[in-house]
Amino acid sequence: MRSAHNCNYLLLIEYDGTDFSGWQKQPAARTVQEEIEKALLKLGSAGAKATAAGRTDKGVHANAQAVCVSFDKGSLKDKDLRFSLNSVLPKDISVISVEKKTSSFNPRFEAEKKKYRYLIWNRPWRSVWRGGNAWHIAGRLDTASMKKASGYLLGRHDFRAFEASGSTQTDKVANLESIDIKRRNGIISICFTGDRFLYKMVRNIVGTLVEAGRGKITPESLRDILASGNRKMAGPTAPPKGLFLEEVFFHEE
Amino acid sequence: MRSAHNCNYLLLIEYDGTDFSGWQKQPAARTVQEEIEKALLKLGSAGAKATAAGRTDKGVHANAQAVCVSFDKGSLKDKDLRFSLNSVLPKDISVISVEKKTSSFNPRFEAEKKKYRYLIWNRPWRSVWRGGNAWHIAGRLDTASMKKASGYLLGRHDFRAFEASGSTQTDKVANLESIDIKRRNGIISICFTGDRFLYKMVRNIVGTLVEAGRGKITPESLRDILASGNRKMAGPTAPPKGLFLEEVFFHEE
Repeated sequence: MRSAHNCNYLLLIEYDGTDFSGWQKQPAARTVQEEIEKALLKLGSAGAKATAAGRTDKGVHANAQAVCVSFDKGSLKDKDLRFSLNSVLPKDISVISVEKKTSSFNPRFEAEKKKYRYLIWNRPWRSVWRGGNAWHIAGRLDTASMKKASGYLLGRHDFRAFEASGSTQTDKVANLESIDIKRRNGIISICFTGDRFLYKMVRNIVGTLVEAGRGKITPESLRDILASGNRKMAGPTAPPKGLFLEEVFFHEE
Repeated sequence: MRSAHNCNYLLLIEYDGTDFSGWQKQPAARTVQEEIEKALLKLGSAGAKATAAGRTDKGVHANAQAVCVSFDKGSLKDKDLRFSLNSVLPKDISVISVEKKTSSFNPRFEAEKKKYRYLIWNRPWRSVWRGGNAWHIAGRLDTASMKKASGYLLGRHDFRAFEASGSTQTDKVANLESIDIKRRNGIISICFTGDRFLYKMVRNIVGTLVEAGRGKITPESLRDILASGNRKMAGPTAPPKGLFLEEVFFHEE
């Protein structure tokens, strides 16, 4: 994604996506982008703009979203910007770091790759701590099957079988570099690293891996679903509350 | 603590203490005990009673509270009790396990020892995930000093210097078996295991260890504060939102 404005600061932010209609500004909806721009305005910068390196959908969280902002900081000191922003931002957004960019900084930046994490709470009882930030699946999933299934998706493929409808992207090819599946203390964490992700691709892959983990399909089915290019072959879309944008790797131009 | 009623089931429960005035029932306040008894009533058991092995104060959480209940389960099957209870309990309480006790089970049970965990979020920015379940301290704490300080508290001592006022307990001696301090991903976890804990003792010790971690007092001061028996010598009471009842070890009589 290229930003359409000059950026003089790069922010890393985290947010709890539960009460947001995603990153991108839209009418009559609470969005992360709008809250960031309102915060910049509160610090005295009229017309401040924010662009994210990786947009997130409604209900999706971020642990380290990269945000490029144009911002007139007035009399504020650089070292106080993080604290000042966190003072005016709502509780479900927090600025982790603020990096000053020189005036020669070219504001266009493109994600070279991104890392997403999906969390499943895989114990029989619902968790008071994991209600809002993990998908609860009560029956024990077979992570060995899920790992085997995930192996068929690695590398450069046409991923249209895992793309939700409603996308305007014509290029369906992506390079899925790694899928890392771990179980720890009842939480199954699935980390995806890749150069690009189609619309709801992570959640559609997770929904399909879970079918393998439940024993409803074989691990090898993933190879056939991928090859089919048919969304109807894949499993259901996993709920957004388990998904986190974990890291954005980008190169400045 | 001895329960004053017959118990035929032992529950392990977790709760997010944020919106509770603690475990114990009291007028015009939302408590965990009352919610558990209401849930048992919803399942058809009139006059059901619940007793906790370790009471918790307002705002304090539990990851595995042991609760002894008297309960007429009617036509419900034992294997469905956890699911049925979780269906009628509010979202901030969850039943982890249900254990049937035989009719010869003596309902009095006493905690042999208990384990508490205290969490500190020790990074400069406020966390969107840790706002309600950790104490935020922005300046980096010296955990080596905190560990050294904690060593002076281990073993059997009169802990009145760390007891809040308002307690009716006359015996101030407790055996603090271990204090385990770890830093991981910005979270400092402090685990306490002991045979008994005076009123707000964990939070008062944490508040004092933090003073050592900030360098405001020396680690050796803990020895002097303990020996003084004077609450005014110790540090401030740490906020309840960082405290979790982690485990109850008890012997049935």
